[in-house]
Amino acid sequence: MTLTLDDILAARERIRGQVDHTPTRHSRRLSLLTGAEVYVKFDNLHFTGSFKERGALNRLLQLSQDERARGVVAASAGNHAQALAYHGNRLGVPVTIVMPHGTPFVKIDGTRAHGASVVIEGDDFSGSTEHAHALAREHGYVFVSAFDDLGIVTGQGVCALELLEDAPGLDGLLIPIGGGGLIAGCAVAAKALRPDIEVIGVEAAMYPSFTARRRGEQARCGGQTIAEGIAIKAVGEIPFAIADPLVDDVIVCEEADFERAVAFYATHEKTVAEGAGAGGLAALLRDPARFAGKRVGLVLCGGNIDARMLAVVLNRELVRERRLVVYRIVGDDRPGMLALMSAVIGGAGGNIIDVVHNRLALDVPAKGAEFDIMVETRDHCHADEIAQALKDKGYVLRMG
Amino acid sequence: MTLTLDDILAARERIRGQVDHTPTRHSRRLSLLTGAEVYVKFDNLHFTGSFKERGALNRLLQLSQDERARGVVAASAGNHAQALAYHGNRLGVPVTIVMPHGTPFVKIDGTRAHGASVVIEGDDFSGSTEHAHALAREHGYVFVSAFDDLGIVTGQGVCALELLEDAPGLDGLLIPIGGGGLIAGCAVAAKALRPDIEVIGVEAAMYPSFTARRRGEQARCGGQTIAEGIAIKAVGEIPFAIADPLVDDVIVCEEADFERAVAFYATHEKTVAEGAGAGGLAALLRDPARFAGKRVGLVLCGGNIDARMLAVVLNRELVRERRLVVYRIVGDDRPGMLALMSAVIGGAGGNIIDVVHNRLALDVPAKGAEFDIMVETRDHCHADEIAQALKDKGYVLRMG
Repeated sequence: MTLTLDDILAARERIRGQVDHTPTRHSRRLSLLTGAEVYVKFDNLHFTGSFKERGALNRLLQLSQDERARGVVAASAGNHAQALAYHGNRLGVPVTIVMPHGTPFVKIDGTRAHGASVVIEGDDFSGSTEHAHALAREHGYVFVSAFDDLGIVTGQGVCALELLEDAPGLDGLLIPIGGGGLIAGCAVAAKALRPDIEVIGVEAAMYPSFTARRRGEQARCGGQTIAEGIAIKAVGEIPFAIADPLVDDVIVCEEADFERAVAFYATHEKTVAEGAGAGGLAALLRDPARFAGKRVGLVLCGGNIDARMLAVVLNRELVRERRLVVYRIVGDDRPGMLALMSAVIGGAGGNIIDVVHNRLALDVPAKGAEFDIMVETRDHCHADEIAQALKDKGYVLRMG
Repeated sequence: MTLTLDDILAARERIRGQVDHTPTRHSRRLSLLTGAEVYVKFDNLHFTGSFKERGALNRLLQLSQDERARGVVAASAGNHAQALAYHGNRLGVPVTIVMPHGTPFVKIDGTRAHGASVVIEGDDFSGSTEHAHALAREHGYVFVSAFDDLGIVTGQGVCALELLEDAPGLDGLLIPIGGGGLIAGCAVAAKALRPDIEVIGVEAAMYPSFTARRRGEQARCGGQTIAEGIAIKAVGEIPFAIADPLVDDVIVCEEADFERAVAFYATHEKTVAEGAGAGGLAALLRDPARFAGKRVGLVLCGGNIDARMLAVVLNRELVRERRLVVYRIVGDDRPGMLALMSAVIGGAGGNIIDVVHNRLALDVPAKGAEFDIMVETRDHCHADEIAQALKDKGYVLRMG
């Protein structure tokens, strides 16, 4: 499998003017926080919210006239579906998207709104893929994989051309790996332009298929990761063949790394990243010493996170930083108890958010009560101060 | 009070290279959603997260050598404090910030981290201001108002220069008004460059001080607005004198408008806005017909929203769109009830998030129970479908 810089340069010309050249910015705040010199490529600012547009558009523009008329089909509940739907509709190419049962309606509606026909079929991604192939055979549609397709991979490589044009002095790139399309295209472009640049992939610990494939192992994949955009059980054949010789290393990140990265992007960079999109920052936060002082380019490759999930992640980060703490206190169940405890917490500068009473726990005396008091604190030291203030007044804390 | 384009051009040269020229982008998604051609100036991407830097820096650079050595003092718990602290520290000017009791510690720590001395004094903003003046008299500090200062107003005008340079064809600007510094500076610059451009202010309904002042009325101000950055009881004398002849109109927005705007920025533009920062979009969402087809520039003037508040706003917007719905159902209190109701809701495609049982409500039979079932839906039509499915099975709904 060969893919050259010239192919990617040609793709860039092919798609020029039809897809955004997304901005790259040096982030002073993320640099201060991590110790690296951080440059972010904001591919979350694409019209459909992810990097998938360049690949989808490049592939669509390589269809023959006859193929264009027949249309394309893909299996995807995510960013590939939206990118293909939007650009297909724009170009007048009929697009059919197969999504598994249980796909959130927001995604179905979003894809329909971009002009695609959506078919719900299959219990999971592989079931939908099977159905998409069947539709391709039946109707003559061209099946377009989200990553295992040379036209797609070539288009994704344009991302690295833009990034290195806007931030030419980078020492390394951190790029999320799902099916591998993005890193394969970017690795070819980046290594051709800058042979000394480090190209480092990022995988989710629940789906380490690239890493396993490299080691000749069977990947153990599964689970509900927040980085669902890279939750792919098997890296694509084409992208793996292209990327394997070029990728210097892969960092496998845990869920907490992705969550922190999403929260950090919102809090410090004022930008919305989906779990997979925040993968580069997740890897940087996981191992900052490795990148200290280096100029690192993060491809923030998608921003399509569910609003409720973003809210959950923001709150969980506050819990992680102990800026939201639950104090579980056993006290007497008599009038005024809560007022007394509240006064201690308020006096120590804590802001009470929620109180839950538990009078049925059997390890609490029948005449006692257990209170779960959720408190907003300034930081973990302050959380300890409040706990100490409660202990000083004789309250028994179970945690916090 | 006179302020000219030349003054603002001079300020631009004075601060050049020391403060970011923030990006302006055409937003296709917000344009589609509102019917206007929307351009956003991302002043939330300043290092300290708000537009306040240009004014603070311009003022600091106008200090005499003697004043620089003595230092400056200001009363602020917000964006002005951070901007003044950061640039003062950078320039070697001692900065003292007075904040009222009860200021969140995140803000105190943030301001200290930028190198300022923070003094906690006063029960509210006016108490802190009084103390800041006292410190100025006592120590010879220069008092720097957040808005009622010609040097500040002049610096803020640079925002409009940048915006009109990057988006020259705008028909109108939507600019939040708190003390009035931003709109005063921007109005001078914009009207000088483009006499036909509409300059429209945005106020929070809880703090309509500019509007009231124009009408010769006493503003009724107060309350906990999400737009705390523009919660100012009296517009500044200097900015009002400058802005009043130039501002074409002011749109007063309700809390729900600001909340929706913050949620829309996150969901559709992938950017984090604080309540006041989202004011321009709030006004556009409040009255889209007025701006249909027009090229409108929104100054997204700040992104310093508390993470917990952002999470709350995202969830409240889901409730507003009925993508989160609570069905209150009165049923028999017997084993299996919840399983039956859950099956109906799940069968209709709803995702149950939370269940609360209430067995003490007196308008429910003693052998009955009230269930509050929180469900994630696709949209308001889907919410109605689920309600209908429950009614069809004979359940009595109290709301939803």
